[in-house]
Amino acid sequence: MVVVMEPGSGEDRIQNVITHLKEMGFDVHRSDGVNHTVLGAVGDKTDVDIRQLEVLDGVHEVVRISEPYKLASRMFRHEDTVIRIGDVTIGGEEVIVAAGPCAVESREQIMRIAACVRESGAKLLRGGAFKPRSSPYSFQGLGEQGLRYLREAADENGLLVITEVTEIGQIDLVTEYADILQVGARNMQNFMLLKQLGTKKKPVFLKRGMSSTIREWLMASEYILSGGNREVILCERGIRTFENYTRNTLDISAVPVIKKLSHLPVFTDPSHGTGIRNKVIPMALASVAAGADGVIVEVHHDPDHAKSDGAQSLYPGQFAEMMMQLRAIARAVQRRVVDIADNGEEKRP
Amino acid sequence: MVVVMEPGSGEDRIQNVITHLKEMGFDVHRSDGVNHTVLGAVGDKTDVDIRQLEVLDGVHEVVRISEPYKLASRMFRHEDTVIRIGDVTIGGEEVIVAAGPCAVESREQIMRIAACVRESGAKLLRGGAFKPRSSPYSFQGLGEQGLRYLREAADENGLLVITEVTEIGQIDLVTEYADILQVGARNMQNFMLLKQLGTKKKPVFLKRGMSSTIREWLMASEYILSGGNREVILCERGIRTFENYTRNTLDISAVPVIKKLSHLPVFTDPSHGTGIRNKVIPMALASVAAGADGVIVEVHHDPDHAKSDGAQSLYPGQFAEMMMQLRAIARAVQRRVVDIADNGEEKRP
Amino acid sequence: MVVVMEPGSGEDRIQNVITHLKEMGFDVHRSDGVNHTVLGAVGDKTDVDIRQLEVLDGVHEVVRISEPYKLASRMFRHEDTVIRIGDVTIGGEEVIVAAGPCAVESREQIMRIAACVRESGAKLLRGGAFKPRSSPYSFQGLGEQGLRYLREAADENGLLVITEVTEIGQIDLVTEYADILQVGARNMQNFMLLKQLGTKKKPVFLKRGMSSTIREWLMASEYILSGGNREVILCERGIRTFENYTRNTLDISAVPVIKKLSHLPVFTDPSHGTGIRNKVIPMALASVAAGADGVIVEVHHDPDHAKSDGAQSLYPGQFAEMMMQLRAIARAVQRRVVDIADNGEEKRP
Amino acid sequence: MVVVMEPGSGEDRIQNVITHLKEMGFDVHRSDGVNHTVLGAVGDKTDVDIRQLEVLDGVHEVVRISEPYKLASRMFRHEDTVIRIGDVTIGGEEVIVAAGPCAVESREQIMRIAACVRESGAKLLRGGAFKPRSSPYSFQGLGEQGLRYLREAADENGLLVITEVTEIGQIDLVTEYADILQVGARNMQNFMLLKQLGTKKKPVFLKRGMSSTIREWLMASEYILSGGNREVILCERGIRTFENYTRNTLDISAVPVIKKLSHLPVFTDPSHGTGIRNKVIPMALASVAAGADGVIVEVHHDPDHAKSDGAQSLYPGQFAEMMMQLRAIARAVQRRVVDIADNGEEKRP
Repeated sequence: MVVVMEPGSGEDRIQNVITHLKEMGFDVHRSDGVNHTVLGAVGDKTDVDIRQLEVLDGVHEVVRISEPYKLASRMFRHEDTVIRIGDVTIGGEEVIVAAGPCAVESREQIMRIAACVRESGAKLLRGGAFKPRSSPYSFQGLGEQGLRYLREAADENGLLVITEVTEIGQIDLVTEYADILQVGARNMQNFMLLKQLGTKKKPVFLKRGMSSTIREWLMASEYILSGGNREVILCERGIRTFENYTRNTLDISAVPVIKKLSHLPVFTDPSHGTGIRNKVIPMALASVAAGADGVIVEVHHDPDHAKSDGAQSLYPGQFAEMMMQLRAIARAVQRRVVDIADNGEEKRP
Repeated sequence: MVVVMEPGSGEDRIQNVITHLKEMGFDVHRSDGVNHTVLGAVGDKTDVDIRQLEVLDGVHEVVRISEPYKLASRMFRHEDTVIRIGDVTIGGEEVIVAAGPCAVESREQIMRIAACVRESGAKLLRGGAFKPRSSPYSFQGLGEQGLRYLREAADENGLLVITEVTEIGQIDLVTEYADILQVGARNMQNFMLLKQLGTKKKPVFLKRGMSSTIREWLMASEYILSGGNREVILCERGIRTFENYTRNTLDISAVPVIKKLSHLPVFTDPSHGTGIRNKVIPMALASVAAGADGVIVEVHHDPDHAKSDGAQSLYPGQFAEMMMQLRAIARAVQRRVVDIADNGEEKRP
Repeated sequence: MVVVMEPGSGEDRIQNVITHLKEMGFDVHRSDGVNHTVLGAVGDKTDVDIRQLEVLDGVHEVVRISEPYKLASRMFRHEDTVIRIGDVTIGGEEVIVAAGPCAVESREQIMRIAACVRESGAKLLRGGAFKPRSSPYSFQGLGEQGLRYLREAADENGLLVITEVTEIGQIDLVTEYADILQVGARNMQNFMLLKQLGTKKKPVFLKRGMSSTIREWLMASEYILSGGNREVILCERGIRTFENYTRNTLDISAVPVIKKLSHLPVFTDPSHGTGIRNKVIPMALASVAAGADGVIVEVHHDPDHAKSDGAQSLYPGQFAEMMMQLRAIARAVQRRVVDIADNGEEKRP
Repeated sequence: MVVVMEPGSGEDRIQNVITHLKEMGFDVHRSDGVNHTVLGAVGDKTDVDIRQLEVLDGVHEVVRISEPYKLASRMFRHEDTVIRIGDVTIGGEEVIVAAGPCAVESREQIMRIAACVRESGAKLLRGGAFKPRSSPYSFQGLGEQGLRYLREAADENGLLVITEVTEIGQIDLVTEYADILQVGARNMQNFMLLKQLGTKKKPVFLKRGMSSTIREWLMASEYILSGGNREVILCERGIRTFENYTRNTLDISAVPVIKKLSHLPVFTDPSHGTGIRNKVIPMALASVAAGADGVIVEVHHDPDHAKSDGAQSLYPGQFAEMMMQLRAIARAVQRRVVDIADNGEEKRP
């Protein structure tokens, strides 16, 4: 931390700031310039509210020089985190696609969609059983029944299950059925939930809050990592901006930013990121071109009658087309999309 | 709902949309214009995802003509909701002030602050026992011990207790000690929590999410109201914008907007709204001038050593000064700030 | 400026940064900590692009320690800037109100509105002659004819004229008719225009760009001030945020922030700030409660038929009511609204 | 336009709205529902301020059903606009790259950079002669001298010149030297400038304002198109959001959105869009993957000593690498990057 004093702030005030810094556990290096005295505070502290210093008399500005997150940082761990679940490797050379409906609606629905997304090359099956809806009058999901259908559909097709947990009380139940536990954007700063997930052994798929900075997102991952669970996958899903033609603005630049700051794998969600079906494919391609480790998209065989998010769900044919194009893009950036059906061999378009 | 068809969309597509609308439970009124056919969908439905219609072939635009919330709406209830807790009336002529530290840190701290905020005219004592902090390495609150101290300090001074509940598992515990249950900005769309609070008999103080629209905020209140709990107080606490001189941008215009759309009382939180101590007073005055039913502010007798948010906490002397000015502003808009000490008599400045 | 080097960045890289800083004209103070080497760059430079340093090898972070503006800063000039034009004093104890239609539409219209706003206590008459409209198909203003009507209406009623200049070629013409030259939000960073206005002798009313930070706004004023024109009035008029219930979000906290950073007077524009007639009064009151030196509002005797912005224009009766309430608010914060008619005497409500 | 009346708004109010609509030149279709009366206003009007109707008594909501722009719309012109300048075709199958320094600094600098960007496959040479800088104390460009150097460097290398015009007074001068006239983000709503450019015969490269909606951006293009100049190229250059790790947030989803709404070619500017050199390449690739017709990037042979924007300028080697990768991405989406050197033959990586 660096504290810059105001010009002519006087020795008393400088000493007062030094005292505060020492109380906080820092070593202090002082440097007197022509106008400003600058105090460098050295020490391995991550829990400091810098505004506490900013309000001291005579302080001009306070600057944090180390990031508040540690375990999520590439300084802490230089190599990419690679997560292996069964045959699936996340964060490696392969680009991974998660696909499925917004919500599990029936056994027949999820079986049908699972088969078609597998056929086109998805490795993970998505689908919500507990739906956090902005209206209390909307469909809230099938609950445990939905989890059961999801597991069955995934097993039938050799897919992994990724599904959302919206509340501490659901963790154990969801853990029974899922391979990856998703934390939705609205829960990104539900710290109680994150803490509990930190004590589990399942990978956590952490969506970025719709108005969260990249720093806050990494701090949220720190809650999970510091609990002992080192398998976190980050997912950019669109931020809230003034533009309302799209439902959110998919911040694709977050992909290369995260790749620099952190060792964690990063996905994007072009379905929620745009909210419009015909924008999903270009944004999925753009994400992989920018370096994403995977994408998660919504697919429905009958989106006109989907109980939620039908408008942003791809038809199976569109999903197949997207996978074809993703293969070409992945190759262009020296990565691969691998088909289950081909036993590890890449399908030629 | 109004569905506008594209020019030349053809009878088939129009019929298809009509079919969809009827399946959704609407009556349909058709009007054929020179360029556009317009379908008016009539019916008392609040759970429709309008994008579901937007993606149908031939649809140009879909417009919701009724708000998705009901119970929170002034159409549903014309008169202001007035909440009475003991001697305190929220949402009436009186402007109510809640004050106290960000977090309860010790018995001595909360006793001391409670006495001074009461002396200056606060009616509610605030203070966090469970702190949702953006860093897992920061002070997380005293838990139940904090609640006990808070209750004692409030009782000693004839104040009511308002404190945050961050998780379903805490509701019963917090309900034992608090008069008003606060839902923080980060939990505004924690729908599971809201649903549970809807079944309780305690007033809920619902902060606006930092990137939530006013509509989403009212929808969140709908979760509580539709559970049977009709005592919700809304609190604007600053939204996230590109400006970063202030921590957030306190959206004071939300006050008159809510007053028009809803019957619920509305407060502001100028401490979180600005994040800077010397901006708190002007923004508190501005809030009451704009019609707020109250403000909630952070006060600490020794903010330099506060365990959280010291930088935005007022000194007791500043708080006394703020109360003096608030009295003058309240009078200017035909409202009142009433002192406990004066038995209902207004203190003359 | 403070440059923080990465841990283990090595002597070569440190020396390279020192060389760069010296080339830029800084004196360098070096401080070696346990993890980080910190370089304090001392010198009176305001034109440095700090990203130029951020990209050097081994640099962790660069922090500007002095603001990039000078003449606008309260460090440069401690006392408030007070602007006197005829009998009107802007930036002093008195709260000044500018009122009038969005656009001058006819001689009769502006004469009528001028009389009524004067009657209620306005000191400045606003009205556009050159209208920058977002559609090329909308009414673009009466041009010089409009300026002539505006001057006549102001003279008739003892008011000053404030009107917008949208382009360098108009400056001389507008200067002939106006007392205060307004720069609209869309032109806040039209630096060529600002530079020209810096060479004139008329006060400039500089609106904040709808997505400009407070720092950029002060930098824009610096363009005018550094040309020699020291009479700049700042005007907050709403920023663009995700909330779209209001047209913009009036950032009232900008008022106390500017008051701290700068000596320049600051107004707000609640008409453009909200875009909705019935939100104008509460936001005008809030602005003065927060410390604004004045407000500018749109008034029209027949807003239903106004050629622009009718929806946000007050009726004359509403304007009279606003002025009454503003008087009470001004008194509550130890300021005054003074009537022309009363020869300096304050009208009692 | 569709006007939805409030429930029980009464026949008088309905008739009043109908009268207003007719005065505005609309035909009115009325539809009485159970709760709401809906008025469909039919007519070819683009200059209506819908708020004018919203404030009428009894009006619940007003909805525009046709976009306010015409000539820019894909409804007006179904086929893509393709712009041909010499041998260069913009908006066709080929992906076009514009490259060069932020500002022309000297003859030697621009000659050197022109040669290297041409070598790697750029078709347009960018470089500013008039620089709109946020600080009046920063380098403001070489003016006409800069234009002369730019033209010479382009001619020497078979490139086209694209450069910014910041003010009406510069148009004729810049037109003499440039092939494409750029309008910067800060001037996107400088309507006087746009109008003048509408009367010229040169293609205009219109950057999106940093807080402009896509609709406002298309309206700005309408100013140029309606003046008779049909050659407009749109360029997304990053919007302002709360995230400040990147300088702006490059809204790549604007590319497919524009492609649907308009027939105009669309570029992106990943240099300004991110502000960070090592984020430029991934965002350029992402843009082309999403369907952009080209990108414009900053390149400097010695960015450490660039007079502006050095931090976001690519080194020549990085630019060459970007072009290589762009070729692969373009192929993956069935487009091409063509080298000048190869006489229309695509270079094999």
